[in-house]
Amino acid sequence: MAVRALWYRGGSLHLIDQRRLPARTVVLRLRSVRAVAEAIRTMAVRGAPAIGVAAAYGMALAAREGRFTPERAATILRATRPTAVDLFVGIEAVRRAWANGEDPLAAAEAYRARIVDECHRIGAAGAPLLARATRVLTHCNAGALATVEWGTALAPIRVARDRGAHLFVWVDETRPVLQGARLTAWELERERIPHAVIADNAAGYYLHSGQVDAVIVGADRIARNGDFANKIGTYEKAVVARENGVPFYVAAPWSTFDAGRSTGRSIPVEERAEAEVLELAGRRLAPTRSRARNPAFDVTPARYVSGFVTPEGVVRPSALGRALARRARS
Amino acid sequence: MAVRALWYRGGSLHLIDQRRLPARTVVLRLRSVRAVAEAIRTMAVRGAPAIGVAAAYGMALAAREGRFTPERAATILRATRPTAVDLFVGIEAVRRAWANGEDPLAAAEAYRARIVDECHRIGAAGAPLLARATRVLTHCNAGALATVEWGTALAPIRVARDRGAHLFVWVDETRPVLQGARLTAWELERERIPHAVIADNAAGYYLHSGQVDAVIVGADRIARNGDFANKIGTYEKAVVARENGVPFYVAAPWSTFDAGRSTGRSIPVEERAEAEVLELAGRRLAPTRSRARNPAFDVTPARYVSGFVTPEGVVRPSALGRALARRARS
Repeated sequence: MAVRALWYRGGSLHLIDQRRLPARTVVLRLRSVRAVAEAIRTMAVRGAPAIGVAAAYGMALAAREGRFTPERAATILRATRPTAVDLFVGIEAVRRAWANGEDPLAAAEAYRARIVDECHRIGAAGAPLLARATRVLTHCNAGALATVEWGTALAPIRVARDRGAHLFVWVDETRPVLQGARLTAWELERERIPHAVIADNAAGYYLHSGQVDAVIVGADRIARNGDFANKIGTYEKAVVARENGVPFYVAAPWSTFDAGRSTGRSIPVEERAEAEVLELAGRRLAPTRSRARNPAFDVTPARYVSGFVTPEGVVRPSALGRALARRARS
Repeated sequence: MAVRALWYRGGSLHLIDQRRLPARTVVLRLRSVRAVAEAIRTMAVRGAPAIGVAAAYGMALAAREGRFTPERAATILRATRPTAVDLFVGIEAVRRAWANGEDPLAAAEAYRARIVDECHRIGAAGAPLLARATRVLTHCNAGALATVEWGTALAPIRVARDRGAHLFVWVDETRPVLQGARLTAWELERERIPHAVIADNAAGYYLHSGQVDAVIVGADRIARNGDFANKIGTYEKAVVARENGVPFYVAAPWSTFDAGRSTGRSIPVEERAEAEVLELAGRRLAPTRSRARNPAFDVTPARYVSGFVTPEGVVRPSALGRALARRARS
């Protein structure tokens, strides 16, 4: 059964509250830009392409509320999370339409449709990479929940499966927020795709012992040279994959490519609350006086990437700059 | 306030129940070999040197019970956990004495004293390595709780601190059992050593951004060529440390060196219950039908090790075989 992370209906943005999964499937109905901003900030919706789409609808809701300028609404939404560039792309797509006197809701719907279409094309572009890979490792959740439908990293897995591949997915649990154990496992379980959840620490064990044929992840922001930000821990997996000769792919729609940024060095990395590390479901894990640090993302240098799976095919890091320049011209 | 993980008094082995930390400090009193075996199997006591000492006392308790042969008692204890070689060394030290008609309790006490002494010497040997390192990363718990007193990886940190170094410790939380967040943080917090707990995924972020000066860990079994088994995730940290030019040290007493094993290839790696990954404190994290894999250890090749911190000084992996041969002769 296909998952959809969010949809607009009857004046409300509906979204699955990803904080409650997998125990409960709760749908939030958001009717204001501030409610959307709060949902993004608290990770009720997360995943770079999905927060871009949610923010696009947030702009449309702001227009409907009637008491914001396009610039003011954009400012509210931009302040939620700093790392995923899709957020800013989704906001800008609607802000521009709104400021030009076009229908903001139509612009949000068009933005959503574009992301969904690109994810399906990512699936088709990436599936051949997995034709001979039977055991695939993924980190965090880059599935339907992260993108609206189908996913980025999970899209090629779904297409390969539909073409008859017998894939097995290693699911990094992805501490501290457990997007792997809670969300990726939930998507795979619904579609009966064989998988095993592992502690993030165990990824290296399986990479080193020859039990992973390919790694595929999503991204939150990709610089022109191929350096990319993604969920904390991605960098470790990329280094260990290369050390063991395992191909490492990054799947993303065009909204995740930040063509104006030459390298990953300046990508802002969000640091989230200590409680995400120190507590789980209200239960304290560490001593009460111990402190934590909680960077939510890391930046992986381009040299660890075997290829970017884009809607227009697989692009090597060395060819990325030219591909983005070509796209900007067309 | 110095921590002691276990002690023998009045016919019982007393040990801090490490499953209950940091929320509660509960002392178990064990009066039989089977109770000791159960405490080791369920990780009420863990850490390679500590389970060796616990097993030594387990042998002494078996002798006191009067209904086991030395061989039968050893068999019960050997069946608990396969990876840490210290377990077998501790058992053997008392089995031999007992079989030779010596006092098994005296043999267990001598074994404990030897481990405690070696840990203090590890501290002195390793402290100079940290003289210029202000930010040290450690994985799992290789402190007093893992060794009886003082620790292996934490011993040089304690000695360096006592000599006036201002150290800060990055504590990998160490999923799935959280020995870092629960136990290492608890030890450091009691001694007011500044530290921050991080998701295991964040270690690479801090290594890559130049915020870690040295990594130091314990071990569960070290082969003659310097390959070593330690808590799952150690391999990833070692690979990422070397990738970033950060020295990586392994601290261990002689009981952890398996001189009869030429490489790490054949070290048995325990796989523990899926529930350690899928549940936390009885709460299900992943979907109810998702499965997990849970290797408790990984094996890191010697080429990632900058030095072994032994009771007799720091030994490079290339010199380890000779050092062990010299020790065997003396």
